[in-house]
Amino acid sequence: MDKKYLVVKKRKGLNKFVLPAFDIKIGTEDVKIENSTGRYAAENIYASFDIPNFKKSLVDGFAVHSGDVRGASPSNPVPLKLKATLKIGESYGDTLKKGETVFVPTGGVVPKEADAVVMIEFCEIQGNEVFVYRDIAKNENLIKAGDDIKKGAQILKIGEKITSEKIASLRAFGIKKLSVYRKIRIGIISTGDELVDSGKAEFGKIYDINGYTIFAESTKWNFIPRYYGIIRDDKNLIKEALKKALSENDIVVMSGGTSKGSFDYTVSAIEELKNGKVLIHGLHLSPGKPTVIGVSERKLIAGLSGNPLSSFLVFKKVIIPLVFEKCNLIYETREIFAEITENVPSRKGREEFIIGKLILKNGKNTVKPLFSESAFSGILAKGDGFIVVPLMSEGIKKGEKVKFELW
Amino acid sequence: MDKKYLVVKKRKGLNKFVLPAFDIKIGTEDVKIENSTGRYAAENIYASFDIPNFKKSLVDGFAVHSGDVRGASPSNPVPLKLKATLKIGESYGDTLKKGETVFVPTGGVVPKEADAVVMIEFCEIQGNEVFVYRDIAKNENLIKAGDDIKKGAQILKIGEKITSEKIASLRAFGIKKLSVYRKIRIGIISTGDELVDSGKAEFGKIYDINGYTIFAESTKWNFIPRYYGIIRDDKNLIKEALKKALSENDIVVMSGGTSKGSFDYTVSAIEELKNGKVLIHGLHLSPGKPTVIGVSERKLIAGLSGNPLSSFLVFKKVIIPLVFEKCNLIYETREIFAEITENVPSRKGREEFIIGKLILKNGKNTVKPLFSESAFSGILAKGDGFIVVPLMSEGIKKGEKVKFELW
Repeated sequence: MDKKYLVVKKRKGLNKFVLPAFDIKIGTEDVKIENSTGRYAAENIYASFDIPNFKKSLVDGFAVHSGDVRGASPSNPVPLKLKATLKIGESYGDTLKKGETVFVPTGGVVPKEADAVVMIEFCEIQGNEVFVYRDIAKNENLIKAGDDIKKGAQILKIGEKITSEKIASLRAFGIKKLSVYRKIRIGIISTGDELVDSGKAEFGKIYDINGYTIFAESTKWNFIPRYYGIIRDDKNLIKEALKKALSENDIVVMSGGTSKGSFDYTVSAIEELKNGKVLIHGLHLSPGKPTVIGVSERKLIAGLSGNPLSSFLVFKKVIIPLVFEKCNLIYETREIFAEITENVPSRKGREEFIIGKLILKNGKNTVKPLFSESAFSGILAKGDGFIVVPLMSEGIKKGEKVKFELW
Repeated sequence: MDKKYLVVKKRKGLNKFVLPAFDIKIGTEDVKIENSTGRYAAENIYASFDIPNFKKSLVDGFAVHSGDVRGASPSNPVPLKLKATLKIGESYGDTLKKGETVFVPTGGVVPKEADAVVMIEFCEIQGNEVFVYRDIAKNENLIKAGDDIKKGAQILKIGEKITSEKIASLRAFGIKKLSVYRKIRIGIISTGDELVDSGKAEFGKIYDINGYTIFAESTKWNFIPRYYGIIRDDKNLIKEALKKALSENDIVVMSGGTSKGSFDYTVSAIEELKNGKVLIHGLHLSPGKPTVIGVSERKLIAGLSGNPLSSFLVFKKVIIPLVFEKCNLIYETREIFAEITENVPSRKGREEFIIGKLILKNGKNTVKPLFSESAFSGILAKGDGFIVVPLMSEGIKKGEKVKFELW
């Protein structure tokens, strides 16, 4: 391999370096709002009117001018003229004058002249009159137009992931369809002479883990994954598999090649593809050093380590953010502060991911580092997320506050 | 309505009261492991062997008896007899004697007699001999059988949600298929004369939010939701809709009826169904007081408030946990400690959910309470989760540590 390709990069700054070299023709499609959960918005949406767009009662009761019932009490009930008994969804067609009241159900329209609603429990109807037994403050038991969502407020942002919580705001405006980005198609290839898919494994062989974890993690981010199985450590076979996967997907992620020999197959295979180029050849990252990023005809190819922990983390924290930035999707993760329960040594000049277990005790969020080798697989299920030890840190001391990223 | 049904309950203890009254015939099905993400395991799985099941090299290097190279250095290289050059997946057929070495690639099998692997960078091959230029500690650059996952360890538990992290452990054993619980079918009905689905809404009418948020939240928990649209406030129409939804689903969730009148339709409709019975008629919970839980022919019916915030939270924190307990699914949520930034008053005798925004600053997790009315919808998108103010609390003081449940 030519020395000029030996580009080892920090994670920071990587996107700026790689983004200009590839394209994803993502496009958009319309989906019904009930099927939009987990998809990424392709449109900005702003509140087209106030929510509620009328003065809304929070109780079953009588809409009043609060000044009318000042000082009302059981021994001093105030009589008001009952003008109407509104049902839900109905509004009072007339002007509510002083001394008048209308019944409004919970969620119903309070006449715009009224400024409070007295709960039905504190009133008594006698023929055409309502006796109010309780004083009430202005604005009590009602919400005003715009109290929930103000006209003009942004309720969906391009690139944002759609959740059930956001659907609540969108449906307040009667929205039935959303424009979302098309799902990104990702081809997944596992390489390695040591790999078997199922059945009995000879001594020294192992089952393919990475193909499946990358597949599963892809669905979590709403990609459409396609698994191309296990390819032997053979440059030509790898090249053929890459060609096929590239033609059928937006990006291709390959794993395997932890040893120097097989690592080289990945690199040469990419270089021999049409307009093939290796851009990154190693990361200052642990686990994740043996990471290759390349392109062929401006399609992204990621070559990840064969080690399960390494390929999982690099896929999650390097490849997905890269693809998201290219497509203007917002890469959202959940970070919290937590106190570390043990010293974590680290080598300066290399960023490090440490899997941790979140333990809540005595009012504190603590994180226990789970020391591991990149060849481990079981560690992922044991942890709740990970800490990032910065590039220039020599480690973290027990008791320090760290940012912990939850799975 | 008969007074005997006026059962107002605390959230705690509710499941014990309601569980005996309904059934869900959940059943199980087999899925390919790559399609199992988000499903709930219907089988316990234990490690059938050690992972790795051989002594595994973490580097490209020479497997040695560490005692042989004690004191080795550039000025004092130790020669060893090269017996074989192993490829990935291959193992050494013979016994590795003292003074001997074999080359092992990263991920390859270290002969069981060797106790360390010297990286290739610190060795030089001369014909049949390897000169080792560096001392090495026992167990360096290798992992032993079982270091990753021990034989017998539980790697999947009945009821557990399957994630990409857990798939890593499962695939270590070559698992291709999993037994999971069938997806629960949930019928969703929105009721209320004030509701419209889309198009122009007359003044005083509002768009149905709850049908869609419950639908979206259901997919998040891997239910199969089916939306039956908006039903007018009419006992017979509600009864017919319930009958249809009950016949086609495992459970039915209805929302609407925040005013006393429509609340009564829900109750009477349930009571008039075949073997219909209302079990819970209100919760000591805010938002969520107007919650009805009933059954018909031992199928669960939940009648939630028409208020978006209320129906969303009660569905998430009362109905889903109830269904999960019935089906032996593990209801997992993510809670952290956070410091509250404002006083939160609360009424004793009523549990309260307060939506909050998580803000990380100065090494602290803080949560800003977003005060709201149960009729609000926009609040869900503004918050990151919620605090539960206990039943007997009179509120939380600014600066107190609280448990915050993330969405």
